[in-house]
Amino acid sequence: MGLFQKCTRLSLRSSYMWSVCPQYSIAVTARETPDRALIVHWTQHRGVHNSRQLGANPANPSAAPPRLPFSRVTQEDLSFFRALLPGRTITDPDLLKSSNVDWLKTVQGSSDVLLRPKTTEEVSQILRYCNERNLAVCPQGGNTGLVGGSVPVFDEIILSTSLMNQVFAFDNISGILTCQAGCVLENLSHYLEERDFIMPLDLGAKGSCHIGGNVSTNAGGLRLLRYGSLRGTVLGLEVVLADGRVLNCLATLRKDNTGYDLKQLFIGSEGTLGVITAVSILCPRKPKAVNVAFLGCSSFQQLLETFQCCRGMLGEILSAFEFLDASCMNLLEKHLKLTNPITECPFYIVIETAGSNATHDEEKLHQFLEEVMTSSLVTDGTVATEATKIKALWSLRERVTEALTHEGYTYKYDISLPVEKIYDLVQDMRRHLGGMAKNVVGYGHVGDGNLHLNITSPSKDFALLAAIEPYVYEWTSQWKGSISAEHGLGLKKRNYIYYSKPSEAVALMGSIKAMLDPKGILNPYKTLPDNIN
Amino acid sequence: MGLFQKCTRLSLRSSYMWSVCPQYSIAVTARETPDRALIVHWTQHRGVHNSRQLGANPANPSAAPPRLPFSRVTQEDLSFFRALLPGRTITDPDLLKSSNVDWLKTVQGSSDVLLRPKTTEEVSQILRYCNERNLAVCPQGGNTGLVGGSVPVFDEIILSTSLMNQVFAFDNISGILTCQAGCVLENLSHYLEERDFIMPLDLGAKGSCHIGGNVSTNAGGLRLLRYGSLRGTVLGLEVVLADGRVLNCLATLRKDNTGYDLKQLFIGSEGTLGVITAVSILCPRKPKAVNVAFLGCSSFQQLLETFQCCRGMLGEILSAFEFLDASCMNLLEKHLKLTNPITECPFYIVIETAGSNATHDEEKLHQFLEEVMTSSLVTDGTVATEATKIKALWSLRERVTEALTHEGYTYKYDISLPVEKIYDLVQDMRRHLGGMAKNVVGYGHVGDGNLHLNITSPSKDFALLAAIEPYVYEWTSQWKGSISAEHGLGLKKRNYIYYSKPSEAVALMGSIKAMLDPKGILNPYKTLPDNIN
Repeated sequence: MGLFQKCTRLSLRSSYMWSVCPQYSIAVTARETPDRALIVHWTQHRGVHNSRQLGANPANPSAAPPRLPFSRVTQEDLSFFRALLPGRTITDPDLLKSSNVDWLKTVQGSSDVLLRPKTTEEVSQILRYCNERNLAVCPQGGNTGLVGGSVPVFDEIILSTSLMNQVFAFDNISGILTCQAGCVLENLSHYLEERDFIMPLDLGAKGSCHIGGNVSTNAGGLRLLRYGSLRGTVLGLEVVLADGRVLNCLATLRKDNTGYDLKQLFIGSEGTLGVITAVSILCPRKPKAVNVAFLGCSSFQQLLETFQCCRGMLGEILSAFEFLDASCMNLLEKHLKLTNPITECPFYIVIETAGSNATHDEEKLHQFLEEVMTSSLVTDGTVATEATKIKALWSLRERVTEALTHEGYTYKYDISLPVEKIYDLVQDMRRHLGGMAKNVVGYGHVGDGNLHLNITSPSKDFALLAAIEPYVYEWTSQWKGSISAEHGLGLKKRNYIYYSKPSEAVALMGSIKAMLDPKGILNPYKTLPDNIN
Repeated sequence: MGLFQKCTRLSLRSSYMWSVCPQYSIAVTARETPDRALIVHWTQHRGVHNSRQLGANPANPSAAPPRLPFSRVTQEDLSFFRALLPGRTITDPDLLKSSNVDWLKTVQGSSDVLLRPKTTEEVSQILRYCNERNLAVCPQGGNTGLVGGSVPVFDEIILSTSLMNQVFAFDNISGILTCQAGCVLENLSHYLEERDFIMPLDLGAKGSCHIGGNVSTNAGGLRLLRYGSLRGTVLGLEVVLADGRVLNCLATLRKDNTGYDLKQLFIGSEGTLGVITAVSILCPRKPKAVNVAFLGCSSFQQLLETFQCCRGMLGEILSAFEFLDASCMNLLEKHLKLTNPITECPFYIVIETAGSNATHDEEKLHQFLEEVMTSSLVTDGTVATEATKIKALWSLRERVTEALTHEGYTYKYDISLPVEKIYDLVQDMRRHLGGMAKNVVGYGHVGDGNLHLNITSPSKDFALLAAIEPYVYEWTSQWKGSISAEHGLGLKKRNYIYYSKPSEAVALMGSIKAMLDPKGILNPYKTLPDNIN
């Protein structure tokens, strides 16, 4: 047990390093027995989740595998990088610290080099060199990911897009923006709003995340319900492949059926197939009128009925339908001192409308609110039309993630399910965990069937983890859900891929990886499972 | 010249077979000299279009290459197919006729076998057998394609999805439809409309085209402006790979970031990477109110200004903005006896609104029409709100393709360009061709920057063709457009891919093809160029 406690303590200091704790799995296995019967049951039921498929470390599939035999960075390598990127080859450990650890402070690497190219040509030269030298590379945008995808696991060279922040062009007839991968989402939003357009995506991390990272992780966020996924709005990409070749698919056309759509390979592949250096994206016009309603419901069933009513009555002006539960509200009040603007309820909804005619939109919203209030679907509510009030209401939804970080350690799950099932998982998990967890909370994107299930404990707790996983994944798999709706797989979830994808599909992904990055230098240990069948 | 005349005459009978006319290129070369200077100029300018890249037959890159060394169907093969598909293995030449020739009657194959599987398992067994036997296969849906992609070029076995027409499920909460690939688009539309939903795509060929074919060609059509492309709305696919393996990615989730999005490989790859057997697709609610306006403009510049005004004032209820020119209207009147409902103009627009509140929509449309009429952007117009009248107005746009078939031979181009450039190409082509062409007409999807440029002559005319191509592709390439916005490349356009994609991208497409279909049995001679650099 000494070893187990040591690991836990290390993680509390936010400096737990996978590479120095090879005995990790033993401790977990010792604590994991209470749920073994369940695991066996599920294995029989689905017939695909044997331990071989759950990675090199079946007891803790999210742990890092052993370091792969990449070269280590030498003085000669550093000389090459310094000649190529004078003043932008960072080796100072203090400066490297924040790039070696993820936003949640749950995954920490030990890279000694951070490279900050400004141009595609520089990225190309870096990758050509690293590929020849067999040096592993971790591409990094704003480092806001939640699955350990954007930080090194061992000593991978960090390739940051932070200085690649130029807007190349914006066409205000077509609404097509073309820019470098390192542009911060919020900066692009400001840039567009001045031109009467908006970005087709918005998310809590907008102040830090890069558009290249958004595309690499196929970020979803708050506007997907209205404007669709990046698979539709991204029109073109420029990508540097593992061997340094530049793939220019930076088209600025809404339609192009000339051959296979290669850019789709790089959307959502988390930097494992290439480094995105530039993006062209279709941006909607800035709506003339925006309204936000914050409503309370006394049951999740009423929330679902409110959603159905809303889609019918608000139709084309509905731009977001988000929810949080009472536990989330408690954390917002407790840790961030936010005020609940309505009477206490088990469930809260954020509805946004965005349209071209303020009078029409208000009329539609008014009719909808009247309907849901008189039919008692909604118990209380408030509406904002003014920018600062809208922002205040939105922050109740957007800052839940931040509030959770104050609770200790958070186990985060990002699940897609049939919409009528999403809260059943939260309730079932509460029953299943009993007193083991400090909090079990649910919030997320009702309109997309996307639940953010978060479970907290005062510190990292392997017994709790063993009670949650694989239970949560099995539950999701039973309802044909996705174990990662929008966060990706990164390091933490890579070995759980078989809960959402058949082995034929995973094998094909492995073939694609081998084709594009035969030496496996790009973001190793991420996205794909350790053992591909 | 005797040979040239023979080829021309054969094509007029719609039974010209690529395989029996190997001398084809000689005749074309003899006629092609007038534009040679131009070709050389462009070759220098772009530096990528050398004759090697333009296929096995540089004089006519759309011609078929020599037959590849696939096996030929034997009696033993037929016995296998008959045992697997009793009564559904068609070898009667009369029954095969319509499956051997494309809708435009410009490409004709000589297949002796048409297979009509009903299940995924049957498709799997067919492909496993064909792959082992090295038999080439041409997957065929409704056979409505315009680039020779859905008919055999030589004796490929035709694998028809026509009996795979079952709807598996429709979830009226999420709006997600799951069905077999052979469902006819219009049948799905009727099915959904009864349930108060619509398909996210609509196109002129809806009465015949299959959803599997729509997905395989990434069909665009009339609703793309509003609901986006199939890359966003298709949520899942089931695909049979060349070797018979079934890839089940038939998810019914709006969001799923677990690994690479494999289904994207099969969207738009024209059956060259796998046979789509089932589709799940996100369907919008049926709008409560639909209005169609048919307007006239005296210049293309005014049409563009009308478009800008329309996007601002109709905003979220705008569901289509299409155009046709006066030449199209003449053909509709002449061949289909349709009546122009407004006074004669150089340009006609079809605008559709679809929304959730009839009063609001009519008000928005009225305000917009008042604006464009008083500012003289629009010279005349009519509006329909009743279903049959809406259908009549839409037929003026939808039936242009049909009207053109009555003019003799049609050279069809489906071009993406920056929207302000799309009609320049039509006008420039008219100047360039002078009296050589019978008609040079333009119509298409203004909202998507997608022009359908059609050039007619009384019969197939190689001198005219040599004057059009590669001129039209070079023009498009100069403006960074796409030489195939929505029709795909098929047989006819495969060798022109380099005008829209760099050689690195085409090489990668070749690697993907080799990975998924190492023997190249799936829809050979299509999509990819004959020579990949």
